[in-house]
Amino acid sequence: MNAIIISIGDELTSGLTMNSNAAWLGRQLTELGISCQLQLTIGDNQSAIAAAIRQSITQCDILLISGGLGPTEDDLTRRAVAEAMGEPLVMDQVALSDLEAFFRRINRTMTENNRLQAMRPLSASCVKNSCGTAPGIMARLSNTQIFVMPGVPKEMKAMFELSYKPLLQAAAGNVVRRIMALNICGAGESWIGSRIADLMKRGANPSVGTTVHDGIVSVRIYATGKPAEAGAMIEAMANTVRHRLGELIFSADQVALETVVVQALLSQESTVTTAESCTGGWIAMMLTNVPGSSACFKRGWVTYSDESKSADIGVDPEVITKYGAVSREVAATMAQQARSRAEAHWALAVTGNAGPVSDDPKNPVGLVYIGIAGPNGHGDIYVRNCQFSGDRQSIRLRSSQMALTLLRLKLLGLDPEAVLPP
Amino acid sequence: MNAIIISIGDELTSGLTMNSNAAWLGRQLTELGISCQLQLTIGDNQSAIAAAIRQSITQCDILLISGGLGPTEDDLTRRAVAEAMGEPLVMDQVALSDLEAFFRRINRTMTENNRLQAMRPLSASCVKNSCGTAPGIMARLSNTQIFVMPGVPKEMKAMFELSYKPLLQAAAGNVVRRIMALNICGAGESWIGSRIADLMKRGANPSVGTTVHDGIVSVRIYATGKPAEAGAMIEAMANTVRHRLGELIFSADQVALETVVVQALLSQESTVTTAESCTGGWIAMMLTNVPGSSACFKRGWVTYSDESKSADIGVDPEVITKYGAVSREVAATMAQQARSRAEAHWALAVTGNAGPVSDDPKNPVGLVYIGIAGPNGHGDIYVRNCQFSGDRQSIRLRSSQMALTLLRLKLLGLDPEAVLPP
Repeated sequence: MNAIIISIGDELTSGLTMNSNAAWLGRQLTELGISCQLQLTIGDNQSAIAAAIRQSITQCDILLISGGLGPTEDDLTRRAVAEAMGEPLVMDQVALSDLEAFFRRINRTMTENNRLQAMRPLSASCVKNSCGTAPGIMARLSNTQIFVMPGVPKEMKAMFELSYKPLLQAAAGNVVRRIMALNICGAGESWIGSRIADLMKRGANPSVGTTVHDGIVSVRIYATGKPAEAGAMIEAMANTVRHRLGELIFSADQVALETVVVQALLSQESTVTTAESCTGGWIAMMLTNVPGSSACFKRGWVTYSDESKSADIGVDPEVITKYGAVSREVAATMAQQARSRAEAHWALAVTGNAGPVSDDPKNPVGLVYIGIAGPNGHGDIYVRNCQFSGDRQSIRLRSSQMALTLLRLKLLGLDPEAVLPP
Repeated sequence: MNAIIISIGDELTSGLTMNSNAAWLGRQLTELGISCQLQLTIGDNQSAIAAAIRQSITQCDILLISGGLGPTEDDLTRRAVAEAMGEPLVMDQVALSDLEAFFRRINRTMTENNRLQAMRPLSASCVKNSCGTAPGIMARLSNTQIFVMPGVPKEMKAMFELSYKPLLQAAAGNVVRRIMALNICGAGESWIGSRIADLMKRGANPSVGTTVHDGIVSVRIYATGKPAEAGAMIEAMANTVRHRLGELIFSADQVALETVVVQALLSQESTVTTAESCTGGWIAMMLTNVPGSSACFKRGWVTYSDESKSADIGVDPEVITKYGAVSREVAATMAQQARSRAEAHWALAVTGNAGPVSDDPKNPVGLVYIGIAGPNGHGDIYVRNCQFSGDRQSIRLRSSQMALTLLRLKLLGLDPEAVLPP
């Protein structure tokens, strides 16, 4: 069973908006064991959409379409589906009264354009939109089942989950494609690839590949088979990968690095504080992304200037003068001082040059020192010297991720120098 | 002149990775005045890629392909292009010696797989990769010019800019499509749409539409014509839109909100500090994203706990007890205290409930108070009471953006209450 995804909108083809809907739908299909090897993105052009629908139905069992169901002039999907089906649009009375009820509820006047949203191709049916005005459309053309959703991500996801996924689940039957991603921070894709090269044979089942996204490398494992079978294959391969890469792996699937760190802190009833220079609050922001982080993160400092490093957390100005703000010594002192001021178990400190320029050859762009002060007495301080590449944004992100990675390893009782590649 | 974009990779079709390349290329084409009404995303399947290439060349003058040029087993684009062209792959000696030089430079051994990267279809040519190993491929098939790029975004962008864009620019000739986005924070898309509804006629030239991305609403204006003509149309329409929406517009095109705020601070030789509770460092992170922000942002606090609000910036604990941490009074005091501690001209303070749950009916999820203390004496304090919807992440982002928006308006000498919709 295979599917094609069509996303509609000039804002997508012109690159103004990232096509996050197609990625989300692709992931859903993968998890349902439905193969999706083709996605189309088409501008707001009725005949082009209709032509793409007609061509797609010759190649797939399932056609998912999102976007172009809105009430404005450039929303043409409804008409294009009718054109592809060779059917007139008719008013769906149930959808119309739902729409009327919606507008009464939010106390707004319903326009003629909104009424058009309740129309559907003659043999199709309307699908309720649980969080917006545009109903979806479900139709059958030749041997293909067509599912149309609004383009607003929240509405699309709700409609897919509530109305389409159960049908797809039933149709997908007994063979599923399972997927697992093992996530790594602190080692490059090629370094990781070299350790699992023999597992990455093309066409194998389970198959293994790597991807990088925002500084996180994911080893992804796919397996196809009956549900229990595929699950077992994934588990076995995941164990092999874990054996090769060990503690470098911080999580599976969608669990974020900061979530893992916050969970480890909470389970150890430990607290952490932050003193950030070049990351400018990013680490604190990541930690506080996690619901419940208030139990382990009470406070942090953004000590962007030399003066604030001294005034706010008490770094001896002489240390800054002697070694420079971007130095091992300042990172260590920042961590130590922040930990003591915050009365936290752990402190993360970052000082570095995120660019775009360097006015000191000793501090090239991308040079970042990350300090950790821990709970085992005054000397429990570790500093890692990192040289990141990329632009300002990615240097700052990599620095924040590396700081969290170092803390994660420390919380496991490990020496980062022994786990991370040099 | 029209183009099709093909993106290649299982990680894209399966939804593991967002297809940012297609969006970026779409934007480039739009700016070059080259119409792109179709984008395809195809899995790592040689015959499917070859078939898509053969079909695409019947529909476009320009075919842009990204991804699948790497050294591993699942990189099949090179072979698929050769298959579509009906040509053998041959070794390109110049590309090969470039590759060999690259590996000598980084002191690594070149593998047999890397050698394959220097191969190209017989009549095609290799294109230098300025920041990676995979050369691009330039080919002509039937009447279509094919440009192949690596999938790594940085390498793709560099190759497009250096090698393909100049050719496309020359080929696009005299009619261009210009685009401008006017960016707004602090008002919803429907509110904005209602003010410019008459400008949004479908098919007009220039045409006007709205998009929302991460809390920023953009009014986008497209104009097609000779370069000077299109530029003038855009300018005239932009003036009309500016007249309607006034100071709600914070920038044009890609200029970020934080950049506008930092520039305003720098031009007024003013400084700002931050005291963040529910945003957890996000505002500081945004401000320090801007190169040169160290001249106006010296320090900030993440006062996530009640205790740190008192200990670190000196909020009277009784104010917190009396009014609650999420209150107008605490936001005002945080701003006032942070401003005075940091000796800054301005202070931004945020306290609110970002969810996911609320244990106090008086503080529902999404209720956020944003305080600003300004340079005009002790009473120069403004607090805005906001009720945001969405998940934790979007409440935190909206809060940070609203704080920057309020500061932006204050720096312009405006009353936010008079500019922002209620």
